[in-house]
Amino acid sequence: MSPDRPAAEAHPESAWLNGRPASEVSIEERGLHYGDGLFETIACIGGRPRLLARHLARLAAGAERLGIGLDPSQVETEVRTAAAGQARAVIKVLLTRGRALARGYRATGGEIPTRITLRYGWPADHSTQAQGVRVRTSGVCLGENPRLAGLKHLNRLEQVLARSEWNDAQIVDALMFSSSGRLISGTMSNVFLVRDGALLTPRLERCGVAGVMRATVLALAGQLRLTATEAELDARDLAGAGELFLTNALIGIHAVRELDARPLAFGAVTQRLQHALELHLEEEAARG
Amino acid sequence: MSPDRPAAEAHPESAWLNGRPASEVSIEERGLHYGDGLFETIACIGGRPRLLARHLARLAAGAERLGIGLDPSQVETEVRTAAAGQARAVIKVLLTRGRALARGYRATGGEIPTRITLRYGWPADHSTQAQGVRVRTSGVCLGENPRLAGLKHLNRLEQVLARSEWNDAQIVDALMFSSSGRLISGTMSNVFLVRDGALLTPRLERCGVAGVMRATVLALAGQLRLTATEAELDARDLAGAGELFLTNALIGIHAVRELDARPLAFGAVTQRLQHALELHLEEEAARG
Repeated sequence: MSPDRPAAEAHPESAWLNGRPASEVSIEERGLHYGDGLFETIACIGGRPRLLARHLARLAAGAERLGIGLDPSQVETEVRTAAAGQARAVIKVLLTRGRALARGYRATGGEIPTRITLRYGWPADHSTQAQGVRVRTSGVCLGENPRLAGLKHLNRLEQVLARSEWNDAQIVDALMFSSSGRLISGTMSNVFLVRDGALLTPRLERCGVAGVMRATVLALAGQLRLTATEAELDARDLAGAGELFLTNALIGIHAVRELDARPLAFGAVTQRLQHALELHLEEEAARG
Repeated sequence: MSPDRPAAEAHPESAWLNGRPASEVSIEERGLHYGDGLFETIACIGGRPRLLARHLARLAAGAERLGIGLDPSQVETEVRTAAAGQARAVIKVLLTRGRALARGYRATGGEIPTRITLRYGWPADHSTQAQGVRVRTSGVCLGENPRLAGLKHLNRLEQVLARSEWNDAQIVDALMFSSSGRLISGTMSNVFLVRDGALLTPRLERCGVAGVMRATVLALAGQLRLTATEAELDARDLAGAGELFLTNALIGIHAVRELDARPLAFGAVTQRLQHALELHLEEEAARG
């Protein structure tokens, strides 16, 4: 284990396979052979999974697009059970097409989907980053495939390669561009730009993951009557942005204070959205 | 199991994990979570793995590009052991970065790579296809990523989606185009066009898998003094091809007799290459 990773985050504290404690999966898993599946990473605070409805809806939409059977209420029960009694934890859910019933890419349709629920300790570094983070741009591009765009699927080698480009623990993420030069996202986050008081975030029709926190921020922007647009953005848009922030289900909103050594303001729009998100998540938690 | 899949091919007859019999892998496998690994599919004939040197070289080159440790002699021993005494079999090797040592995309560098060796029965349908096969074109495109291009990695959702587009057992594969409209390959094969007596096959700098049979055919073409070019090809090149054939490590060379209901000749160049390949593989087998 590397010294900059706390032990709590290294391995899951608990793991379930189709609802039962387990530490292994079949060597014939199509998730292993092809990445034939999806995942969710869910923040659990005060014993409750945060933004669970959005996570379940995205998982269901992805399963439908990949033709993988899913009973969302099963996942909901398992995530709530895993979260119960945990002050702070991260729950990762994987849903795959299951054990292969034949060699080769073709699914027979008779596969039994695999649900994996893993609970990890809360990462120690997230709380220290409230005042802003450092980010770089990645040299690894994202291939474009409209059929996979938006999905949080298990084909993540592009992100693995991009994440291997730096070791500086002070840099939290890298922005990635598509093969046709469009700004898409971080390796593990979505990105928002602020220009003239309005929000811009990359369209995700060709690649990228449609994050649940991205959707939450877009909804909050509407409530705050901020103009928010999903747009085709490139490196010039990035260079021209007055404020920049990253979102994901664990970090919420992280202001980017430095991009490739260029300083950026922790601006008013970002602060306003952070505040609105905090209230929104508190309200959600109060509803239970 | 679907009726058009023989039982021998459905599940592995034998499975080894890092050299020991096993049926499961860790639930923390980076191969499962991210597709962080590579594979080879090797034909075994008369107790011997075919084109093994090429398979091992490609696996080693892929492991180097992904930064995964590999001792090719270990894989060689395991594949030879799995093949021994088998008249005909398929051996699939997976090499992954191993069990995750931390949550998230970042590899710590301390991971212990996972080697999986699976032996399957020989597919019953391959021998019936010697006189040519039917092929379609796929509506699923291949994303372009130079960093992953050529590798036989575990991110195969594009192929899974493409293979789900048809159920007709008479159609053996589908040709796929890149997101920028270039002809790349079949879902599980490389493709060659014959035009004016010369061979053309797609360049694989942006996507696609650099098949061992593709490399073998290119080498044989040189020996036969056929002009063979790796080129940027598109749908018009495909439409203008006089002969068309597919290659992979199991099928060797399959003449395409029908593409999307368009009949194609089982032409002289394809037949010449098939004959040369047969001799080449016999010589390799005789050398042991």
